Amino acid sequence: MENQVEGFLVSQFTQEGRRSVEETVAKEFPVTIVLNNQAIVTLLCSPKNLDCLTVGYLSSEGLLKSKDEIKKIMVDEQRGVVQLDTVAAQEIAQDFPFKWIITSGGGRGASFYSAADAASQKVKFETKTSPDEVFALVNEFQHGSEVYLATHGIHSAALADCKRILMFSEDIGRHNAIDKIFGKCLLENIPTNGKVLITSGRISSEILHKAAKKGIPIIVSISVPTNLGVKIATDLDITLIGSVKGSRKMNVYANDWRVINGKHV
Amino acid sequence: MENQVEGFLVSQFTQEGRRSVEETVAKEFPVTIVLNNQAIVTLLCSPKNLDCLTVGYLSSEGLLKSKDEIKKIMVDEQRGVVQLDTVAAQEIAQDFPFKWIITSGGGRGASFYSAADAASQKVKFETKTSPDEVFALVNEFQHGSEVYLATHGIHSAALADCKRILMFSEDIGRHNAIDKIFGKCLLENIPTNGKVLITSGRISSEILHKAAKKGIPIIVSISVPTNLGVKIATDLDITLIGSVKGSRKMNVYANDWRVINGKHV
Repeated sequence: MENQVEGFLVSQFTQEGRRSVEETVAKEFPVTIVLNNQAIVTLLCSPKNLDCLTVGYLSSEGLLKSKDEIKKIMVDEQRGVVQLDTVAAQEIAQDFPFKWIITSGGGRGASFYSAADAASQKVKFETKTSPDEVFALVNEFQHGSEVYLATHGIHSAALADCKRILMFSEDIGRHNAIDKIFGKCLLENIPTNGKVLITSGRISSEILHKAAKKGIPIIVSISVPTNLGVKIATDLDITLIGSVKGSRKMNVYANDWRVINGKHV
Repeated sequence: MENQVEGFLVSQFTQEGRRSVEETVAKEFPVTIVLNNQAIVTLLCSPKNLDCLTVGYLSSEGLLKSKDEIKKIMVDEQRGVVQLDTVAAQEIAQDFPFKWIITSGGGRGASFYSAADAASQKVKFETKTSPDEVFALVNEFQHGSEVYLATHGIHSAALADCKRILMFSEDIGRHNAIDKIFGKCLLENIPTNGKVLITSGRISSEILHKAAKKGIPIIVSISVPTNLGVKIATDLDITLIGSVKGSRKMNVYANDWRVINGKHV
C-alpha cells in the first residue's frame, strides 16, 4: 500500500483549537498510454497495476480484443508512460472515434499533462479566513443543494467571499460544477480573484490548476485531496482546506497562514 | 430542479422483504462543445447552465480569456450541442495541447458519444442473485480496501461470482478501478462473462457500456446511478443494484428478475 498513499503534516482545527497531525492521502499519478508509438490518453490514476489499467482501458475503448494481440507491454513508472505494442502494428484509423486524445501528451513528462496547466501562476491574494467562517460557509453550502438532497448523486461547487456564498452550482461531474461557476463569472463579469472556492468533490491536481488560473487563494472541500493536490496547492500558494466535517473538524493541507483565529492546543 | 432529476420505480429490498418504491436519480446528459465549428469535447453533465459550462470549460482549458472574445453562444438542448463562436474566428493551432478531443463527436447525437458504446450488446447471461448474497459481497468488498480505509479518497472495484469476490482493485478514478479489473482478466485469461461487477462509484452510462462489452449481467454499487445509467442498464438487460447500505437496504434499478428470494411486503 505504501506506493499508493502519502502522509502529510496538516493543521487540524477542531472545537478544542488547532493542532498538527499527520494525514494520509491517496497518490495521484498521470500515466500516458502509448499504443504502437501513438499517445492515446493521459489518465490520472493510482500508481499500481499500470499494465492492467492500460490493457483494461484499451479493451474498454475497443482498441484491444484479446491477450493474443499483445506483443509487448513496457511500464515506465519513472516517466509515467506505458507503451503497448500489438502484434499487428497497424496505425489506428484516422477516423477512429477516440473519446480522448492527447496530441502532445507523450513526451511531456509526469508533472504537467497540459501546457495550460504548466502556465499556472502562484496566487498572490492575502485573503484570510477562520475555522468559524469555513464551518459557516460549508453549512450554508451543504444546505444549498436541492438535487443532492433528492438524489445523493451529484456534486456541487460554490464561489464565496469569507462571509457568504455568492454563487452555487451542481453537476454530476465535479469538474463541471466548478466550470459552471467560472463560466458564469466570466459571462457576468464577476471577479473571481481573492474569492473562496467550495466543492463537494475530491481535490485533484486539475482542480488546483483551474483555481489558480482564476486567482482563487482558498479552496474548501468536504472531501479529501490527493497527494498531487496537496503538492500543487503548496507550490501555487493556495490554501487547501479539506475533510470539513460539520463544525467539528477541518484539515488545512497547505498554506495554513491564511487561516487565523485558531488557538493552538 | 425537475429538469435535473428523474424518478424511477425500483425494487427495494430491506430486512422486511421486497417492495416497489420511487427513487429519484440525477440526470446525465452528453453535451458536445463546438468552438468555431470544431468539436472540442463531449462532456457528461447535468443538463443545466450549459452556457456557463461551455464558457467555464473553454476558459479552464485556456481557449477563452474574456467575455469580449465571445461572438455568439448557441445552446441546442435537444441535440446536446453548444456552439460558441469567438470574434476572432481563427482555427485552433494544430499543436494545441488539448486534453480531450472528440474527433467525430459533433454530429453523433446525444445517445451515444462513442461508436464503441453504440456497439454494446444485450447481456444474455441468466446469472441470478439474492439480497443476502449481495449484502455479503458488499460487506466483503467494503473491508477489502486498505487505501480507502487509510485515506477515504479512493474508488474500488471488484469482480465476483455470486458467492465470493474473485479480484479487487483500487484507483483514484472510478473508471480506472474498473479498467484495472478488466485488464487483469484479459491478461490472465479470466472470463468475465456472467460475473458480478462491484463498484464504490456512481453508475453512469459509460460504466454500463464497459460492463456490457465484458458480458457482465449484474452490477452492484454502493453509490447511486444516473438516469442514463438506469436506462442503458434496462436496454442492455443488465441488473443494476445500487444504494447498498450495509445489510439493511438495496435498490434494484433495472432488471430485477435476476434477484430472487426476496419476499414481497
